[in-house]
Amino acid sequence: MDSIEDTEPRTVGPSKGRVEAFSDGVFAIAITLLILEIRVPEAEDGALWNDLLRLWPSYGAYAVSFLTIGVMWVNHHHLMAFVARVDRGLLYRNLALLGVVGFIPFPTALLAEYIEGHGLANQRAAVGAYGLTMIVLSIAFTFLWSHLDRHPELTTSYGDPAVIRGSTVQAATAIAAYAVATGVAFVAPIVSLAIYALLVVAFVFARPTVPKSAARRGDTSSQ
Amino acid sequence: MDSIEDTEPRTVGPSKGRVEAFSDGVFAIAITLLILEIRVPEAEDGALWNDLLRLWPSYGAYAVSFLTIGVMWVNHHHLMAFVARVDRGLLYRNLALLGVVGFIPFPTALLAEYIEGHGLANQRAAVGAYGLTMIVLSIAFTFLWSHLDRHPELTTSYGDPAVIRGSTVQAATAIAAYAVATGVAFVAPIVSLAIYALLVVAFVFARPTVPKSAARRGDTSSQ
Amino acid sequence: MDSIEDTEPRTVGPSKGRVEAFSDGVFAIAITLLILEIRVPEAEDGALWNDLLRLWPSYGAYAVSFLTIGVMWVNHHHLMAFVARVDRGLLYRNLALLGVVGFIPFPTALLAEYIEGHGLANQRAAVGAYGLTMIVLSIAFTFLWSHLDRHPELTTSYGDPAVIRGSTVQAATAIAAYAVATGVAFVAPIVSLAIYALLVVAFVFARPTVPKSAARRGDTSSQ
Amino acid sequence: MDSIEDTEPRTVGPSKGRVEAFSDGVFAIAITLLILEIRVPEAEDGALWNDLLRLWPSYGAYAVSFLTIGVMWVNHHHLMAFVARVDRGLLYRNLALLGVVGFIPFPTALLAEYIEGHGLANQRAAVGAYGLTMIVLSIAFTFLWSHLDRHPELTTSYGDPAVIRGSTVQAATAIAAYAVATGVAFVAPIVSLAIYALLVVAFVFARPTVPKSAARRGDTSSQ
Repeated sequence: MDSIEDTEPRTVGPSKGRVEAFSDGVFAIAITLLILEIRVPEAEDGALWNDLLRLWPSYGAYAVSFLTIGVMWVNHHHLMAFVARVDRGLLYRNLALLGVVGFIPFPTALLAEYIEGHGLANQRAAVGAYGLTMIVLSIAFTFLWSHLDRHPELTTSYGDPAVIRGSTVQAATAIAAYAVATGVAFVAPIVSLAIYALLVVAFVFARPTVPKSAARRGDTSSQ
Repeated sequence: MDSIEDTEPRTVGPSKGRVEAFSDGVFAIAITLLILEIRVPEAEDGALWNDLLRLWPSYGAYAVSFLTIGVMWVNHHHLMAFVARVDRGLLYRNLALLGVVGFIPFPTALLAEYIEGHGLANQRAAVGAYGLTMIVLSIAFTFLWSHLDRHPELTTSYGDPAVIRGSTVQAATAIAAYAVATGVAFVAPIVSLAIYALLVVAFVFARPTVPKSAARRGDTSSQ
Repeated sequence: MDSIEDTEPRTVGPSKGRVEAFSDGVFAIAITLLILEIRVPEAEDGALWNDLLRLWPSYGAYAVSFLTIGVMWVNHHHLMAFVARVDRGLLYRNLALLGVVGFIPFPTALLAEYIEGHGLANQRAAVGAYGLTMIVLSIAFTFLWSHLDRHPELTTSYGDPAVIRGSTVQAATAIAAYAVATGVAFVAPIVSLAIYALLVVAFVFARPTVPKSAARRGDTSSQ
Repeated sequence: MDSIEDTEPRTVGPSKGRVEAFSDGVFAIAITLLILEIRVPEAEDGALWNDLLRLWPSYGAYAVSFLTIGVMWVNHHHLMAFVARVDRGLLYRNLALLGVVGFIPFPTALLAEYIEGHGLANQRAAVGAYGLTMIVLSIAFTFLWSHLDRHPELTTSYGDPAVIRGSTVQAATAIAAYAVATGVAFVAPIVSLAIYALLVVAFVFARPTVPKSAARRGDTSSQ
């Protein structure tokens, strides 16, 4: 699956390929379990259509969390593209990240349930819990990137130190951004939600581009 | 897994192989989660056999959705066979498609619950909601195919422009077909259901065949 | 993943590798979803231990279904080892098989719920429903094997016709065996259950061995 | 995916690669299903934040089980690194292990539910049930390692007999350690829980290191 791995000396710890496959599995399952949080409404005669419309917070929460996990999966692949070897530190930091990813269906369900009709205090709590999860997720990503930053011997020839440093800083910035958004949740939860959505869209476009040189090196090494 | 990828220059975005593996995961999980929507009936003494027979809408919904997701998986593979490189546009259009695929268990459960015994209005709503999901699914497929149509540089040597164009048109036709079927749902929901089933069967057989020339080129390039 | 595939001409339909990966996914998910059918008991003060012991039918149903799906996965791999190319017929017969595999958690849950304490009629129905599922599963396997039997052009060089014929007959025999066991369910459900368990154990050991010649051919072709 | 396999003669039983992929799937699904056991609380107006805080046993059980399954996945990979060929004995011992891994979400849910507020007797039962599961898990691992120990013909060139023997002893030691911890559960369940957590952390660091010679052999064989 990965031509790099074949030319690397084998280590006895889990190979990069199996770590990727396992991570892909957890991402794919977490993203698909989101739907289980949308329950079929028990509609009275003729009321189903309205009941389905009133489920909009569930659809919204599903969409935001699906995109969030999807973007995190893209970021995870971006990170793994720089990894040549997996040591114990990377392995368990990755496991911690997967633990947070696997947790996302729970705050998503909270959001869907309490975004409307259960009072402002509960709305704040649900939006705040979602934000806390995103903070922990960003921390996990920061730990992963900074581990690569401190261990250049684990990276591939694509591993331009500047890119890895930049990604570490970006992940750390995400902690701050989600901390602000979570703080806002306790004042104006809807504004907070809008910031969450904006942050996800930002992640889609803000991925640091690889310097020309590194990309060119990648091209030639495989030809 | 894919011999094409090995000869392509490496890009830092998610490789085709990992996009396929992640997509396969989501398809496999969504198709298997369908069973969770069939609940064990709480039968009175001696009534279980009848209760199981009365669950036929659940079995029917399971079968239709299983076949639908299965056919979509086949179509997805058909599409990926033309892809040589995954850019950001393809990545997020694919994620949108997976988001709809992951959503299918919900309208399936609606169908199973409201197809019988909850009044005609609710039956219409459930069949309509299922149709709407299929419309969005067809839109997502159309966006994917038209992206390939507009970006021939992303396609493999198998990517005969005529085939890609034909698949784009076919996906757009599916939008129209499901729109009609969904419209019918508000008049005669059972007829609508029959059209859904017919459409799935049509997809099994209507996959555009690859022109002889392209197929031959594919054969020789791998020998 | 599979050295055979690399030397085969590429076809545009789903490759054998992706069919295997998708099937593995469905098997792995169905086998893991079984646990969701065992609910945490609501125990009164001090009664949890007894409540856990009284859940033995759930543990038994979990074990039997886990082994059943596991053995079917082994058989599926056995079958795929003879496949060189996947045509539409094989693809949809395989999808039908996966549809039955994905269904198994439901009769498993029925068995766990109604094996005890809900009257003999319900017990018969639950054991009968489980048997019916196994009959359909055996039919799906028979369709797959007989398709390979009638299409030797789809098979690998390992595809000794006698082995494929033997496996087809064995799968058809399983239909008959499960039909008998299911019939017994309506007289003595516990005896029926014992036959189910025996059949699974038989499948573990009864896999037709590959003739020496075919095995030797396999060895040399990869060296 | 695995360079060793390519140079091995093909056998008709499931290949090592497919056994690994299937096992990875079950591990990934079991670890992600854990979140389904944390239910969204039905909070009264303004009480959600407190209700979320009171769910701490659920978060703790999620974290411990996530780490446990994660460590078992690492150990499983460690074991598979020594495997060159999969025979029937290894296949079904592996299936038994996966059956226990797939079972873990159930005692995890028990722990989350009964660790607090349901009386000491129920607490003991929940902690005891968790420990029993860990004992069975250790037994399954011991059976796997000892099978490799007794069948050196199944192992790769990395398979230093001393390492395999050491891992077998370590797995057997884990049985004893969990037996003690489970025994403690019937006296002081909280102490027992602390031992479970310690044992998981110990597994992270106690993996037997591969002797220099074996590692060097591995390095050279792939260059």
